[in-house]
Amino acid sequence: MERKRGNQTVFFNNKPKIIGYYSIVGPKEGKGPLRNYFSEIEEKDDFFGQKTYEKAERVMIERALDGAIKSANVKYTDVHLFMAGDLLNQIISSSYAARSFDIPYVGVFGACSTMAESLALSACLVDGGHFDTIACATSSHFSTAERQFRFPLELGNQRPPTSQWTVTGSGADIVSIKGNGPRITCATFGKVTDYGINDVNNMGAAMAPAAMNTLLAHFKDANTSPRDYDLILSGDLGKLGSEILIDLMEDHGYKLGLNYKDCGQIIFKRNQNVLMGGSGCGCSATVFNSIIMKKLMTGELKKVLLMATGALLSTTSTQQGDTVPGIAHAVVIEGEKNE
Amino acid sequence: MERKRGNQTVFFNNKPKIIGYYSIVGPKEGKGPLRNYFSEIEEKDDFFGQKTYEKAERVMIERALDGAIKSANVKYTDVHLFMAGDLLNQIISSSYAARSFDIPYVGVFGACSTMAESLALSACLVDGGHFDTIACATSSHFSTAERQFRFPLELGNQRPPTSQWTVTGSGADIVSIKGNGPRITCATFGKVTDYGINDVNNMGAAMAPAAMNTLLAHFKDANTSPRDYDLILSGDLGKLGSEILIDLMEDHGYKLGLNYKDCGQIIFKRNQNVLMGGSGCGCSATVFNSIIMKKLMTGELKKVLLMATGALLSTTSTQQGDTVPGIAHAVVIEGEKNE
Repeated sequence: MERKRGNQTVFFNNKPKIIGYYSIVGPKEGKGPLRNYFSEIEEKDDFFGQKTYEKAERVMIERALDGAIKSANVKYTDVHLFMAGDLLNQIISSSYAARSFDIPYVGVFGACSTMAESLALSACLVDGGHFDTIACATSSHFSTAERQFRFPLELGNQRPPTSQWTVTGSGADIVSIKGNGPRITCATFGKVTDYGINDVNNMGAAMAPAAMNTLLAHFKDANTSPRDYDLILSGDLGKLGSEILIDLMEDHGYKLGLNYKDCGQIIFKRNQNVLMGGSGCGCSATVFNSIIMKKLMTGELKKVLLMATGALLSTTSTQQGDTVPGIAHAVVIEGEKNE
Repeated sequence: MERKRGNQTVFFNNKPKIIGYYSIVGPKEGKGPLRNYFSEIEEKDDFFGQKTYEKAERVMIERALDGAIKSANVKYTDVHLFMAGDLLNQIISSSYAARSFDIPYVGVFGACSTMAESLALSACLVDGGHFDTIACATSSHFSTAERQFRFPLELGNQRPPTSQWTVTGSGADIVSIKGNGPRITCATFGKVTDYGINDVNNMGAAMAPAAMNTLLAHFKDANTSPRDYDLILSGDLGKLGSEILIDLMEDHGYKLGLNYKDCGQIIFKRNQNVLMGGSGCGCSATVFNSIIMKKLMTGELKKVLLMATGALLSTTSTQQGDTVPGIAHAVVIEGEKNE
């Protein structure tokens, strides 16, 4: 069967499915509105029993992968590839977590777009028949991100009003040709987009143009419009970034209505002191792998466009005066009952 | 057609081909034994006309991608995906280079295994019919790596005898279902392997066990032995790492003979003060995309196993007492004339 393809979108003939999923979060996320949806909440503190935050982040990925494999009701030996990435330098959370598993490993990096990137690539590899079953995962941790990208927490720096709060959490999915679960029907790969934002405390604004580009490419390639989806879910644009995206899309003739949500605005309550909302790879990973997957499983949601955005900067690029390029990758997931 | 697969190896039915390639290196590499094989040598200094080494590394990737596309004799609009990664935090060399091109971009990270990782993934995506033509690239730069991973050059630190010299260079390939060129016939995805090495100046020893694991998996999956290849080429194990790999393989009953080489030992002359040899993502990328590709094109080499190895550490993991996990991915490339 010839494969349908758009400029940036690939359509899957063989219906790769998400047969297992898991989300694990820290105490703050566990007090948020999605409390009852997460697979696991660490109530005590965000050390997850480890001596450092970096080791804690690693443990989250290990538990997420472990939980996703159990939830898929498959064996470790049935999983043929583990694809993961995270925000830490040299994606150590993912690579050290991969060390604990006897599964071939591929590291990816898309900053906070990693969940969608790894789902998109995994779906291609499963659809192409190269692998039957792939696990993908990502994570972020407030305390590792703050000290790597901004300031040591001990300094007690004040946070600018446009800043977001990095989610402490990890999400994992098992993508397979076998078994049952919501299907990944297509994936849109994003282009790097830079509108010249150089405020590293305003990631939403830096990523919104990339989100717009990917949405426009997706609607064109799939010949759809926003109303064709039960839910269009961006990763972590936050309040300001989402508003910018809505405006940008309107300029292009697309109205994002009530079916558009942003994970960064769903995961925390307003009174949790998170300013523009949640961010980090773990934001879309844990929101998708909790309430969204649950609603896809029950049929409450039938067709979801998950578009995770990433800001592709480092502290070095910022120090050298570079602006912040963004990227957004998108996957469409359709519920089992949407035949 | 049913796809042949091994435990860690996928075999390609549709013959993804390397239809274009390019290598660019700095002055030191340009004075080495492969001088006449590189596509481009920057003779002046390793700034490549930029103000910082990091921006220089980015320019190398841009030129490599540009050169590879020209060498493939295709247009930019024919390339549907750009897959790249590098050693810098948040792979900024790749992401900022991707900003210059109007091509969907996927970031990957496998430390110095990135050239093989991106070739392997690209071959899957082309073989599966998801993309017709993919560009993949990677880079490293001595001066960016030294100041990020070790010490600022200005300190003039002495280098331990087991250390290697990070190659300043970038290599790019165009993998396509159309056109002519050496075929990628299979890929073996490696597992993270950690033998407990904690000496960050001895990457060869840290990566050799991962190389062994991937070679063993490959020979088993493909039902081959070392003598079935004209060349088995490891990425950057260096002198010590290569010797360890030869010993480890002998323990498992495989004799790596004269057809085994390591890019890290090919790229520099002994008198270039590089101790154990070259290293970095750019090492295998520039060696493969110069002398090796040239010999595959002429038919002098008919079947090459390119296995690039990566050390998956960061400065943070080292500071927190972690040992160094390694990984190795392998691809088999067969010359056009090997029908």
